[in-house]
Amino acid sequence: MSHTAELIAVGTELLLGNIANTDAQMISQGLSALGITVHNHTVVGDNPERLAEALDIARRRADIIITTGGLGPTYDDLTKQTICKTFGRELELHQDILDEISAWFQSKMGKKMPENNIQQAMLPVNCTVFDNPVGTAPGCAFQEGGVHVLMLPGPPFECRYMFENRAAPYLEKLTDGVIVSHEIRIFGMGESSVEETLYEPMTRLTNPTLAPYAKPNEVMLRATAKADTPEAAEAMLRPLVAQVQDMLGDVVYGVDVGSLEEVVSALLKERDLTLSAAESCTGGLIAKRMTDLPGASAVFRGGVVSYTDAVKSGVLGVPEDVLAEYGAVSEPAARAMAEGCRKICGSDLAVSVTGVAGPDSDGRGTEVGTVFIALASGEGVICRKFSCGKGRGRDRVRTSAAQYAFDMIRRSLLGLPQEP
Amino acid sequence: MSHTAELIAVGTELLLGNIANTDAQMISQGLSALGITVHNHTVVGDNPERLAEALDIARRRADIIITTGGLGPTYDDLTKQTICKTFGRELELHQDILDEISAWFQSKMGKKMPENNIQQAMLPVNCTVFDNPVGTAPGCAFQEGGVHVLMLPGPPFECRYMFENRAAPYLEKLTDGVIVSHEIRIFGMGESSVEETLYEPMTRLTNPTLAPYAKPNEVMLRATAKADTPEAAEAMLRPLVAQVQDMLGDVVYGVDVGSLEEVVSALLKERDLTLSAAESCTGGLIAKRMTDLPGASAVFRGGVVSYTDAVKSGVLGVPEDVLAEYGAVSEPAARAMAEGCRKICGSDLAVSVTGVAGPDSDGRGTEVGTVFIALASGEGVICRKFSCGKGRGRDRVRTSAAQYAFDMIRRSLLGLPQEP
Repeated sequence: MSHTAELIAVGTELLLGNIANTDAQMISQGLSALGITVHNHTVVGDNPERLAEALDIARRRADIIITTGGLGPTYDDLTKQTICKTFGRELELHQDILDEISAWFQSKMGKKMPENNIQQAMLPVNCTVFDNPVGTAPGCAFQEGGVHVLMLPGPPFECRYMFENRAAPYLEKLTDGVIVSHEIRIFGMGESSVEETLYEPMTRLTNPTLAPYAKPNEVMLRATAKADTPEAAEAMLRPLVAQVQDMLGDVVYGVDVGSLEEVVSALLKERDLTLSAAESCTGGLIAKRMTDLPGASAVFRGGVVSYTDAVKSGVLGVPEDVLAEYGAVSEPAARAMAEGCRKICGSDLAVSVTGVAGPDSDGRGTEVGTVFIALASGEGVICRKFSCGKGRGRDRVRTSAAQYAFDMIRRSLLGLPQEP
Repeated sequence: MSHTAELIAVGTELLLGNIANTDAQMISQGLSALGITVHNHTVVGDNPERLAEALDIARRRADIIITTGGLGPTYDDLTKQTICKTFGRELELHQDILDEISAWFQSKMGKKMPENNIQQAMLPVNCTVFDNPVGTAPGCAFQEGGVHVLMLPGPPFECRYMFENRAAPYLEKLTDGVIVSHEIRIFGMGESSVEETLYEPMTRLTNPTLAPYAKPNEVMLRATAKADTPEAAEAMLRPLVAQVQDMLGDVVYGVDVGSLEEVVSALLKERDLTLSAAESCTGGLIAKRMTDLPGASAVFRGGVVSYTDAVKSGVLGVPEDVLAEYGAVSEPAARAMAEGCRKICGSDLAVSVTGVAGPDSDGRGTEVGTVFIALASGEGVICRKFSCGKGRGRDRVRTSAAQYAFDMIRRSLLGLPQEP
């Protein structure tokens, strides 16, 4: 039987725009992997009437309702009460859950449980309890009139843990058939060119399907197949993914990979090479992204954030006359930064980035978005000039420059031409 | 007249969890500032029937409907057609918009407009056109049966521009009364302690109101007042904000500020001081956050990402016997890193961070999350040991360590005790 889910997030903070509904994103990804179709996300405030209305609408069009938020101890957390009222259930005290919450306060917070946390141990009668080892609010699930209602806590870290370890196993038992998808990651070709190239498979196919998603500074294609078994779905996807790679060429930097830096890191590891980074306009972003990856120390030695000329010359050894003659945003400066960084960090490769992130120019009239990226290795230094961000602001210039830097390293390690 | 808005996002990529609905967050913030109450966010896929259903529900409970997404040139972009059908309007070609889109392709992309972009110039008859200088999809608005329908493009950068510069001016004319809010930012006290301390004003007040929002590694309180004029709202908020600051003390690091690093940056600027950073476990995150701020070069000189012992000793000058005897994650190493960084970067202050971000320990059995942070200045070096992230994973350890580092700098610059 195929299932349709609706996600209802409860929290005035979402309607005020204090946070984005990232829980819905995370749960949607998980449901997609379980072969459960999501037709709607809904957000309501901490308001029992509007939550009741959303539940009434959802129970008519979905057979799985997952709520996030409103399970906390504060006075405005009303999810359980409202759901029980809508579905005609009572709440009862679960002493074991109360004991767990008390223990959690003792061990993690080193203090006695506040009185108002007692209501977190009140759960619907005859529900499946989702105990919560990473927070105080337990979740739960029950079935009523053919609809499964699952309640998860709102804080994203808790919500993820509870979905993956409590809700997903509960839902797995309900589903048959699987949806399998692969993500094809592309850098160096815009969304409209990708769509133009792949127009035929994208519009013709119904199962598997191929759909484009623009991400900041790259394009992602998702190939999805629905079948009885994972193996059957994979067999449907394999030729499609190969066809896409064939049609797009080396702008495809990976399939089912997390990011360009993850690909670079894996390539370095395979080749037993190390990297360092000298960053001016990216200001540590490349180092930050490399060290976001667990085990980064095997391939990333470190780097220098040379945000001033004095650090460029004093720490990286960029000759002062290079800075005086060509400026810090120049090919000679980029080359000297990469060479200097490679030397002081003792790495096999060193990448450098120097550019104008904006909002102001560099005093020499260099256009905002102009970025020089150099890559030094035992074989010498290569340098390219990019125009990053296309007037889309400081943040886009920086993230785009970092993407170009990672792609230069990828191309160099794979022996690909630098120009796609 | 007071207005109620509903946001409808259109895009299967949201239901698959490829992206989070950040457009809804941004628009909600903007509507809140305009005094327009948002009662619901809804997300539907690229599916005309379900969009029509969402529009039918929304028009019964809101008098402003704002859609995001589905205005692009691709085959699955159906928002305008579906809205026109629901509200009984025709689409017509706007030649001036078509000319603008063609010109955009020429100037920004250096190529001829693809055929399928023509449908972006099809707009409802008698609508207010929202021209789009930052992309190809124009938006629009019309009123029908007492409901205002506004359509904005989905890509976040375009959506923000179009909301702020096109939709907001349109909506301003509809509203009376204003909502003003102030954000009180807190670091060093947990959400439940903040709530306990402020229980009385938080539960008693109806206008102004005070509501807590947990953010990663900090707490934010929003004080909100509704009044006829901004001045009247401010007069209601002033005593409340003062009361909160009085009750919480120096864990309040700012009101209406963007981040701890923004406060640190402003304090450095006021005092004409510069900072540098030596980062091990944070791997460039502190430098990245400092340089996220426009004009960072006035106060941030740069730094070293010393991800290996060789860079700690070779570049920062941490004595090798310190590393051998105490390990890289130790107070002596942190102190030497800060001192070395201050020297080579020539900054007034230097902060250093060394710790175990995980998932693995450091080989000496140091607990994951253990972080030493040192701050060097002309007056000497102070160092503190923190337990960061509380078992919440690598990312939380790193962001939490960066927060502690910025707060140490803030406390030092303000002459506050280091322990709150």
